[in-house]
Amino acid sequence: MIKPLGDRIVLQAIEQEEKTASGIVLPESAKEKPQEGKVIAVGTGRYENGQKVALEVKEGDHVIFSKYAGTEVKVGEDDLLILRESDILAIVN
Amino acid sequence: MIKPLGDRIVLQAIEQEEKTASGIVLPESAKEKPQEGKVIAVGTGRYENGQKVALEVKEGDHVIFSKYAGTEVKVGEDDLLILRESDILAIVN
Amino acid sequence: MIKPLGDRIVLQAIEQEEKTASGIVLPESAKEKPQEGKVIAVGTGRYENGQKVALEVKEGDHVIFSKYAGTEVKVGEDDLLILRESDILAIVN
Amino acid sequence: MIKPLGDRIVLQAIEQEEKTASGIVLPESAKEKPQEGKVIAVGTGRYENGQKVALEVKEGDHVIFSKYAGTEVKVGEDDLLILRESDILAIVN
Amino acid sequence: MIKPLGDRIVLQAIEQEEKTASGIVLPESAKEKPQEGKVIAVGTGRYENGQKVALEVKEGDHVIFSKYAGTEVKVGEDDLLILRESDILAIVN
Amino acid sequence: MIKPLGDRIVLQAIEQEEKTASGIVLPESAKEKPQEGKVIAVGTGRYENGQKVALEVKEGDHVIFSKYAGTEVKVGEDDLLILRESDILAIVN
Amino acid sequence: MIKPLGDRIVLQAIEQEEKTASGIVLPESAKEKPQEGKVIAVGTGRYENGQKVALEVKEGDHVIFSKYAGTEVKVGEDDLLILRESDILAIVN
Repeated sequence: MIKPLGDRIVLQAIEQEEKTASGIVLPESAKEKPQEGKVIAVGTGRYENGQKVALEVKEGDHVIFSKYAGTEVKVGEDDLLILRESDILAIVN
Repeated sequence: MIKPLGDRIVLQAIEQEEKTASGIVLPESAKEKPQEGKVIAVGTGRYENGQKVALEVKEGDHVIFSKYAGTEVKVGEDDLLILRESDILAIVN
Repeated sequence: MIKPLGDRIVLQAIEQEEKTASGIVLPESAKEKPQEGKVIAVGTGRYENGQKVALEVKEGDHVIFSKYAGTEVKVGEDDLLILRESDILAIVN
Repeated sequence: MIKPLGDRIVLQAIEQEEKTASGIVLPESAKEKPQEGKVIAVGTGRYENGQKVALEVKEGDHVIFSKYAGTEVKVGEDDLLILRESDILAIVN
Repeated sequence: MIKPLGDRIVLQAIEQEEKTASGIVLPESAKEKPQEGKVIAVGTGRYENGQKVALEVKEGDHVIFSKYAGTEVKVGEDDLLILRESDILAIVN
Repeated sequence: MIKPLGDRIVLQAIEQEEKTASGIVLPESAKEKPQEGKVIAVGTGRYENGQKVALEVKEGDHVIFSKYAGTEVKVGEDDLLILRESDILAIVN
Repeated sequence: MIKPLGDRIVLQAIEQEEKTASGIVLPESAKEKPQEGKVIAVGTGRYENGQKVALEVKEGDHVIFSKYAGTEVKVGEDDLLILRESDILAIVN
């Protein structure tokens, strides 16, 4: 189990479609870096003027995050991404 | 549905007129990057000294924003822009 | 109508005299960038330690502002400048 | 009349002596930029943790200021300098 | 005994496996810098708006930390790493 | 009289010995910039979270300061240095 | 006597062993800059949100500090180092 600290969030990136709109299959190197992920775990929250406030995202949320944000880590067999909540742009339902 | 976090706002850019004042139709590359947009969704607000305050813009507002601000994302078929309220300069009615 | 956000102010630049002290008419390119403007609209105020405080300038004020500050926008036929109150140096009466 | 905003101060620079210690008259270009000025007008004050506090300098004070600080403006026939109180180093009596 | 100050943490890096997935033994220079460590000692805490708050990690925790963060020190025979809690990304159980 | 503002301090530098340990008289250019001075005047204090607190150094103190800190000014015949209290490292008795 | 200001600390560096593990005596230039020191004097404390808090280290402590931190000063015959408490990483007993 992985437990991020403070305002950090653990994500699993969601791979983009491997076909372009016109149906061409893209080789690995031509695919854009994914910017969407599923929240695996969230930190205990962050401090705002001395008060601890809970994070806005929760486990299981599907989110859009800033490209190149965070740190890639390998936990067991999984490639995960740890980033701060401020790098999460929006929740998509 | 897309739900921006904190002080973030989701916009749909409004395309500038494709004709110059003198009536010449501009090719795509000569058009200025749009700086106006329609607000699609707003975040839950931001913290000011420990108190959460609501954002000044609301869904449906027509706004002017800082050129090059924010992150372009594709949600379904829509090209959207996610930026912070501080990148919104003014509301135009 | 244009409504600037927070501590932002909308100005209309006041063109400098087109003659030098010795009476020579200056071509467009030799004129200094104007640093004076008339306030068209003011934002709702800014936060100081969690309290919202009103701006010091008001609609109609004639102000001196920092050269190159702000963002030029075109609203209808008007070329306006949107800047933060901290870019306004002084009010001239 | 010129009314600086917030923690800003309007100064009139005091020209340095045009003779060196040995009595040689200096040409314009060899004179050091003046670092002393007379306070013409002071802003309404600045915020410290949400409380507005008055400035330490007042109209008529003779001050030493940081070289190259501030913005030179021409108001009517006067060349003035607008700077922040933090650029004022000391009051000289 | 080593007692880190404030929000600092003393770690002992955990060496990565010396074999790749396919069983090849890696020479020293081809191994990635370890990003996992065991907490040896934690500081007394940090200040949040004037209140001292305890750290989230505790002695014995297995943590993931930011690559290149902190300072390597040699205490007796041990090579240790001293870093700030903000450089700890997550606790792994 | 010179009255520094806020957290500023006026110093008179104390010239270092002009002989090296071995008794060689140093030419002007080989002498290190002095880092010690005598406090001539102190400002009214600085703000800490909205409360004004007095400075730690007082007139007449012999202090060590950061090399190259502050601004050199000439007041009458005296070469003085104006710096912030944070550039004062220690008081030497 | 030397009295550091605020959150500053005066250290005397502790010279590293002049022999390597294998017993080779190192010439001066091959020795690493010492990162350990003995606390000679501590400042009066620092402000946290308007409250003055005492420093964590005290006179006589043996500490590890950030390489290249602080300012080297000569007081009488002693070569001392003045640094901020935030440059002290840990106390070693």
